[in-house]
Amino acid sequence: MISLVALGEPLIQLNAVTPGPLRYVAYFEKHVAGSEANFCIAATMAGARCSLIARVGDDEFGRNIVEYLRGRGVDVSHVKVDPGAPTGIYFVQRHFPVPGRSRLIYYRKGSAGSRVGPDDVDSSLISSADAVHSTGITLALSDSANRAVHKAFGEAKRRTFDTNIRPALWPDLAAARRAILDVLNYGVDVLVTDPDDTQILLGVRDPEEAYRKYRELGVQTLVYKLGAEGAYVFWNGGSYFRDALKVAVEDPTGAGDAVAGYFVALYLSGVDPRRALDLAVAASALVVGVRGDNEALPSPREAEELLKAL
Amino acid sequence: MISLVALGEPLIQLNAVTPGPLRYVAYFEKHVAGSEANFCIAATMAGARCSLIARVGDDEFGRNIVEYLRGRGVDVSHVKVDPGAPTGIYFVQRHFPVPGRSRLIYYRKGSAGSRVGPDDVDSSLISSADAVHSTGITLALSDSANRAVHKAFGEAKRRTFDTNIRPALWPDLAAARRAILDVLNYGVDVLVTDPDDTQILLGVRDPEEAYRKYRELGVQTLVYKLGAEGAYVFWNGGSYFRDALKVAVEDPTGAGDAVAGYFVALYLSGVDPRRALDLAVAASALVVGVRGDNEALPSPREAEELLKAL
Amino acid sequence: MISLVALGEPLIQLNAVTPGPLRYVAYFEKHVAGSEANFCIAATMAGARCSLIARVGDDEFGRNIVEYLRGRGVDVSHVKVDPGAPTGIYFVQRHFPVPGRSRLIYYRKGSAGSRVGPDDVDSSLISSADAVHSTGITLALSDSANRAVHKAFGEAKRRTFDTNIRPALWPDLAAARRAILDVLNYGVDVLVTDPDDTQILLGVRDPEEAYRKYRELGVQTLVYKLGAEGAYVFWNGGSYFRDALKVAVEDPTGAGDAVAGYFVALYLSGVDPRRALDLAVAASALVVGVRGDNEALPSPREAEELLKAL
Amino acid sequence: MISLVALGEPLIQLNAVTPGPLRYVAYFEKHVAGSEANFCIAATMAGARCSLIARVGDDEFGRNIVEYLRGRGVDVSHVKVDPGAPTGIYFVQRHFPVPGRSRLIYYRKGSAGSRVGPDDVDSSLISSADAVHSTGITLALSDSANRAVHKAFGEAKRRTFDTNIRPALWPDLAAARRAILDVLNYGVDVLVTDPDDTQILLGVRDPEEAYRKYRELGVQTLVYKLGAEGAYVFWNGGSYFRDALKVAVEDPTGAGDAVAGYFVALYLSGVDPRRALDLAVAASALVVGVRGDNEALPSPREAEELLKAL
Amino acid sequence: MISLVALGEPLIQLNAVTPGPLRYVAYFEKHVAGSEANFCIAATMAGARCSLIARVGDDEFGRNIVEYLRGRGVDVSHVKVDPGAPTGIYFVQRHFPVPGRSRLIYYRKGSAGSRVGPDDVDSSLISSADAVHSTGITLALSDSANRAVHKAFGEAKRRTFDTNIRPALWPDLAAARRAILDVLNYGVDVLVTDPDDTQILLGVRDPEEAYRKYRELGVQTLVYKLGAEGAYVFWNGGSYFRDALKVAVEDPTGAGDAVAGYFVALYLSGVDPRRALDLAVAASALVVGVRGDNEALPSPREAEELLKAL
Amino acid sequence: MISLVALGEPLIQLNAVTPGPLRYVAYFEKHVAGSEANFCIAATMAGARCSLIARVGDDEFGRNIVEYLRGRGVDVSHVKVDPGAPTGIYFVQRHFPVPGRSRLIYYRKGSAGSRVGPDDVDSSLISSADAVHSTGITLALSDSANRAVHKAFGEAKRRTFDTNIRPALWPDLAAARRAILDVLNYGVDVLVTDPDDTQILLGVRDPEEAYRKYRELGVQTLVYKLGAEGAYVFWNGGSYFRDALKVAVEDPTGAGDAVAGYFVALYLSGVDPRRALDLAVAASALVVGVRGDNEALPSPREAEELLKAL
Repeated sequence: MISLVALGEPLIQLNAVTPGPLRYVAYFEKHVAGSEANFCIAATMAGARCSLIARVGDDEFGRNIVEYLRGRGVDVSHVKVDPGAPTGIYFVQRHFPVPGRSRLIYYRKGSAGSRVGPDDVDSSLISSADAVHSTGITLALSDSANRAVHKAFGEAKRRTFDTNIRPALWPDLAAARRAILDVLNYGVDVLVTDPDDTQILLGVRDPEEAYRKYRELGVQTLVYKLGAEGAYVFWNGGSYFRDALKVAVEDPTGAGDAVAGYFVALYLSGVDPRRALDLAVAASALVVGVRGDNEALPSPREAEELLKAL
Repeated sequence: MISLVALGEPLIQLNAVTPGPLRYVAYFEKHVAGSEANFCIAATMAGARCSLIARVGDDEFGRNIVEYLRGRGVDVSHVKVDPGAPTGIYFVQRHFPVPGRSRLIYYRKGSAGSRVGPDDVDSSLISSADAVHSTGITLALSDSANRAVHKAFGEAKRRTFDTNIRPALWPDLAAARRAILDVLNYGVDVLVTDPDDTQILLGVRDPEEAYRKYRELGVQTLVYKLGAEGAYVFWNGGSYFRDALKVAVEDPTGAGDAVAGYFVALYLSGVDPRRALDLAVAASALVVGVRGDNEALPSPREAEELLKAL
Repeated sequence: MISLVALGEPLIQLNAVTPGPLRYVAYFEKHVAGSEANFCIAATMAGARCSLIARVGDDEFGRNIVEYLRGRGVDVSHVKVDPGAPTGIYFVQRHFPVPGRSRLIYYRKGSAGSRVGPDDVDSSLISSADAVHSTGITLALSDSANRAVHKAFGEAKRRTFDTNIRPALWPDLAAARRAILDVLNYGVDVLVTDPDDTQILLGVRDPEEAYRKYRELGVQTLVYKLGAEGAYVFWNGGSYFRDALKVAVEDPTGAGDAVAGYFVALYLSGVDPRRALDLAVAASALVVGVRGDNEALPSPREAEELLKAL
Repeated sequence: MISLVALGEPLIQLNAVTPGPLRYVAYFEKHVAGSEANFCIAATMAGARCSLIARVGDDEFGRNIVEYLRGRGVDVSHVKVDPGAPTGIYFVQRHFPVPGRSRLIYYRKGSAGSRVGPDDVDSSLISSADAVHSTGITLALSDSANRAVHKAFGEAKRRTFDTNIRPALWPDLAAARRAILDVLNYGVDVLVTDPDDTQILLGVRDPEEAYRKYRELGVQTLVYKLGAEGAYVFWNGGSYFRDALKVAVEDPTGAGDAVAGYFVALYLSGVDPRRALDLAVAASALVVGVRGDNEALPSPREAEELLKAL
Repeated sequence: MISLVALGEPLIQLNAVTPGPLRYVAYFEKHVAGSEANFCIAATMAGARCSLIARVGDDEFGRNIVEYLRGRGVDVSHVKVDPGAPTGIYFVQRHFPVPGRSRLIYYRKGSAGSRVGPDDVDSSLISSADAVHSTGITLALSDSANRAVHKAFGEAKRRTFDTNIRPALWPDLAAARRAILDVLNYGVDVLVTDPDDTQILLGVRDPEEAYRKYRELGVQTLVYKLGAEGAYVFWNGGSYFRDALKVAVEDPTGAGDAVAGYFVALYLSGVDPRRALDLAVAASALVVGVRGDNEALPSPREAEELLKAL
Repeated sequence: MISLVALGEPLIQLNAVTPGPLRYVAYFEKHVAGSEANFCIAATMAGARCSLIARVGDDEFGRNIVEYLRGRGVDVSHVKVDPGAPTGIYFVQRHFPVPGRSRLIYYRKGSAGSRVGPDDVDSSLISSADAVHSTGITLALSDSANRAVHKAFGEAKRRTFDTNIRPALWPDLAAARRAILDVLNYGVDVLVTDPDDTQILLGVRDPEEAYRKYRELGVQTLVYKLGAEGAYVFWNGGSYFRDALKVAVEDPTGAGDAVAGYFVALYLSGVDPRRALDLAVAASALVVGVRGDNEALPSPREAEELLKAL
């Protein structure tokens, strides 16, 4: 069984029970989420072992996160309880103002999760893992979080990364670009990204061109997500495009993490990249059909059943 | 900022939480609605000031309506509390027997709202407003409501009207026809209608032909709604067709009011009729995605965001 | 098995899911209720057969009522569908402005149920029944409803009556007094009432004094409800007081109907009046613990279990 | 009015309120279901009288079933209460792992319903009915249930059957095949089935070929369901294909029973098979739009309204 | 009609739908709250006009607050939208770990509301109002908020104050003590407080003693709340104790604000302090029976009805 | 940290969202429960380490149980997945027919959990634990479960036991008596029981007398629960009675397990029996205030806070 480490901030998600502008939403449904936590759960469902390096507050939401992730089989022994700050949360506004899309409203500034730092990165954990994963979100959290990623990537056997540029978390896009390119310098085995982020990072959108440029930056394998159209995978020796499955969307949040976690876990375990992408895309198709980012992640057998059925 | 006055009955809507025949629906969700109240909210969201002339009962539902509309920015200083009758209500049965359509069951006979009359129409309010709006529903409420519309239209600078023929509210279609044609005699600047109502009123369905005939009756600008297909606008010097947006429908109730309120507010403020229709159609696309007739009305910026996204 | 007939209006109840003033209640829960319908269900649970004479509208709510009552074992073959008017409904505001009490907001004026009349009273049904039951509510519904009660009481073997004076349904209390005293003239075997109604009817509140006066008016057996304190039963040869059970109140609506239906069914079947009252009070204690007027009516074995447990 | 008898197990359905894997579903919604109970309700809605032969436990769920079916107009005088075993139940997992499909998790082994037997089959009921209906599910319940079907089919005037092969209920598919072919020997007037079941029974999938083979086995009329594509009907003298209606799916469970009950009731009443299939397909289109297998069954007028609208 | 001004932070409240530790609460119900906003609504219900000086974020929650307060009749023309920070929110954990009590978890650090400052205090509004109200919470929000209170109190005709010491918002209790005593220096007409806060401020708990000491600090009238026991009022010339009403508690949050707003509005309007306290205590008894801090605030007539009923 | 082992069947609980007879309950809320699982969680909250020996089905409910218990910190490495049978479930009917009490309806016959047997009892786990716990429920599950308890008790260092006689699970009370007395023969360190069970086991109810008799059977310490009155603890050298806390009851299920798990964990860790009982009674007071048997279990600090507050 492959072992992964992810570094990032787990969050409590308050998802609007009814669609439309939040001011008229009366009820919110609580979930555990956060890009790297989602990644870990997806990887676990796909058969890997995944440890999360993170901080949560000494509060009910922090305990909620730890219990949920432990229940899902994620290794939480490196999730620290930081009594100095609250656990980060965010709200999800669904289907407004664009049906099929969600808008995220964060209350995570100064959160416990943003205070993660290099001291939380256990070198023996890193060196024993097959790969370390992080995202552009973690780079944006705080200076200490950024340094934690650098420490982890510097010591990792292999690195996987999801660009995940959230403009609201950065002072400007140039800062995002710099921070992410810095991290790509370590050499990334699997990069997960999309045309919007690639436009910011490299000034191009075209898949082939993007792959060529990312390769020059040391990326081995590229998963290039085209949203509702599907996704490409490029690897040393080939490329493959997978149509997205046509499904009704309840909340698209978490779809990208599903692709990342599922693909990385399978691919690094030796599964053919085409098949890994097929299953990852199936996993993400199930995630968008429910509220919550990771509850509908399938087992590989269930993902397979979906691929056969449609 | 343009100022509008609408005359009609605000209602409490009890919307089925689950689809199907009402007898098996266990829970109902309360909303504030009514065609002219929806119009006022849509106009307000689009940037106008809108006063509602109406009556509500001296009861919790009446207070509910006043508080909600005031919260939404509608001028409720001309909404009178009538202790002699209850506030009107209605139930919404969704997706049965036709998926995507709703059926309305009214409890509004003899309601406070139907007792609105000419005395409720403040002439100084009317004369200071840029336009007065009403609908075929108000004409059908009661004799006094009908006379109130005549008084208001008689004194108004400009008039806008939505035909909104609800057969259940009329003794027969001929009565509806007579009452509406009577009102068109005042000269209507913007008429909002559709082929079904036009068939009743003029015996034609074709958009061009309808516009020609309405013009002869003194209509300046015509918004001609074709439901899930889209809508036309005809004006002195041009016409324009806008495709409807393809969205999942939770409850189509209120979509027409969204078009009317949004279009009238923008168009009378000087916005190009094409752009006004585009935004009005976007507004109505958001309204049908939720329960409640007016909570999902967007700001112009949000409507624009939707138009760009799809 | 004893056979009863009840005459009155079944209604759809919309019960506030959350307590407090209705204007801030977002969700309502649908139930089938109405004093005489509740009586029939209570009598059925207590082992009697009960036929309801009534009208409902030709609408989903009318069908809801018929299906529910038939499901509960009530004979609905004399419930007519009247296409000329809607089924009556009402809302329940709970715990406001007095915790533990409910306020009812009716939409039943001109309802199908209020159009019940003498022609709906099947003489062969009446003459074959052991007793006929009605209430002060039915007398207040309409002139035709009042006449229907007179016809039924005139032809009945035995009569039971619940005074149930709802001031909102009467022009004035004198009218209520006259109408009820008129009906008592037929000779009532079991009268169910309380000090408030008795004050209106006879000008007294004291239980003993009330019984003496009601006896003079031809009442055989008196059930005299003292709300949260308990209830008396007076009969030819004795009297008995039963403490109410101390239970948490969710909605007291329907408690009186539970006492009436349960007591009448048992007592007329020959059960000792003390035991009949004990079980009837237990039944009403369960009814107040839930929303809905009749769902928590127990079987006699369950009522017994409650009496033993407390 | 035509009279039908159905033999099978009514069940309590616990339907997931939210989609996705059951382990993350917090709330379940209770419904009354079961293939033959659904058939009876559909037939009743289509204008037939339908008696159900069945057993339920002496528990709240058993009482729930009896009250609900009686409310819906089904004759429940042959539903026995069996105190020796609990009422069967099942859970519905929706949209996982295949969006648009449901997975059923049964708790019905040894249930009261599975203990139905030949003694429960009242010969006078059978001989007075126009037709007797059962399904492959009843054959699989128990040996006594299987014998009950044989007794009923042996004494019936006419027979209708829905193959409904649920692999989880059979030791192996050969057993299902044997049991169903045994029952077809009685001569079936209307057989309802689909390509998957026909593959198991006859080794063919093609509609025409299936009809030819079923005819040889004594089937008069064949309804051949192709799921989301539509359905065929073959009869002596013709065939007809009806496209399915394009509707959003909440839970497809019960769609097949809707087709069977609606078609059989109409067709045996003399309705043209084309029109019977049209209405049956419309009925099933409404059923899949809601949770619960039979609440959204339309009246023929409502089914017609749907056909006209789309 | 008396006119009041309140200065403080309105918040969005996320109230646990089910009791117990938050980590197992799946659903939260949204309300508008905040001590001074609650005060304004209570005062408005009691017949006063109340303006709120505050800031909210340029987000859905900020718009929610403005619309709700405007709907309730609060003057929101001095609520500024501050695009530089989010609207503050908090969660309510109910009945854990002490049944009948609630625990508040704030996400308000650096919120728009905490950025209120002296520039937001419109001197002409202050000077035209009959009294200005604030609380210990506002003093704790930020330095600018503290200065805003000083400016407002310095310019006010009369001052009312609720000590409301929330230890979590202060660096230490000495800071709270200093800040509050500073403000009392302006001379407070009505002070609302309790033994816990008085222990911190003056080192005493006894009501009489507290009143003596507060008088020396310039307080005219003292409302001294003893929680579930009741409340005292002391004024120049008398004192009065009112028992609390015995009611079931859903969430006690907001009870103190109800007392403050209701008492201040009535008392400053000239109502006898005894009667003002009676009604204020009745108002608070209704508030604790529901989730949400201000929805169950009664009209004076409703409060009276409650006092008579119990 | 003390280490415990519990042996028994974890179950999925479907708790009625609304009170009253189950047939009218529309929604059920899912929880993880089962007496020994509750014990483990209570012990874990009280500071112990607890391993559960059990089986669950290879289904969503089984996975639900494992994930939840792992999340709560219970050692689930000895919970086996048994593909041969489904996970056991039960329904909770609340407040009917006795307010304040719950009725359990099991679907656990032949469940995976009942198939636990001696082979599932890992001798090295047993010998390394400080104590082994089981209950009368486990003894009743099956012959193999009974033998598993004997094996575990035979090899355990110390034994704790909760009599928990559920008549529905036993052929007769004599069988329960025999099975439990057999197990007491191993020598039980802490016995948790009540007067009803003791009447069955020993023919006495009086606390002192019960303790005397249990002592003769080798019991060291006795926790004797008197329901809503409180509980005794008897130990070598003393006895102590603790009043129950007066709290509103939502669902009393799980209260006894809370007492057992909390008391055993604290007492075996060396806490004074009086204090252990105080905290255990506080824990159980929180459990009865919510649906779900173990979500409201407090930390010792929270239990302490409750004891101080009341």
